[in-house]
Amino acid sequence: MDAPVWNIMVATCPSRTSLAKIANKWTAMIVIALSKGSLRFGEIREEVDGISGKVLADTLRDLERDGIVERTAYNQMPPRVEYELTALGRSLREPLTALGRWAEEHISEVLDARDAYDERPGTRVLP
Amino acid sequence: MDAPVWNIMVATCPSRTSLAKIANKWTAMIVIALSKGSLRFGEIREEVDGISGKVLADTLRDLERDGIVERTAYNQMPPRVEYELTALGRSLREPLTALGRWAEEHISEVLDARDAYDERPGTRVLP
Repeated sequence: MDAPVWNIMVATCPSRTSLAKIANKWTAMIVIALSKGSLRFGEIREEVDGISGKVLADTLRDLERDGIVERTAYNQMPPRVEYELTALGRSLREPLTALGRWAEEHISEVLDARDAYDERPGTRVLP
Repeated sequence: MDAPVWNIMVATCPSRTSLAKIANKWTAMIVIALSKGSLRFGEIREEVDGISGKVLADTLRDLERDGIVERTAYNQMPPRVEYELTALGRSLREPLTALGRWAEEHISEVLDARDAYDERPGTRVLP
């Protein structure tokens, strides 16, 4: 039997759910933050400016469940918990870093485009 | 004066907003659908299975405003409106296609990881 063919364009394909999780700004920033090595919860929160504790905890749990991040609790006092990318997670570094770099490199063009769009005269035909 | 340094990791940086828009499953699928050439609204909707008319219209308007998609209304009967990637939008094809391909190529590993995670015995220490 052939292996199943995954296709993100099919609404019911499991790969669509996976795309939804990785095509996400918080996932992108967390994976980028973990690209340099393992970090503790508070360290990730410092790197990813503006993320709430709840969103970070939820996203990390999702990423752990999907095999992208590994969580290690060290049996010591005070307790220490570290997060790092798995091999699978490291394969996400390149596309997500490229996306983050795109946002930084092209923001001037995006801002110019927004200004031009907002200055256009009114009524526009809806699709 | 130096050009401003954009940094997605800073919550107030405009590049963060841009990342939020491109790191999005619908944006990814629409850009991938438009990679092959211009499409009409209904054609994009057929390609991106499961997208609602409202989400597609909103996302296309956002992408147009950000200079990623160009909308052309042909003055004919019945009216014809086409969407295509701008030069800026074409520079997004590669990172977003890579993300979509990642989701398809690694979904088996992701599903295995989920099964393993869900089978783990109960109580887990929160971060």
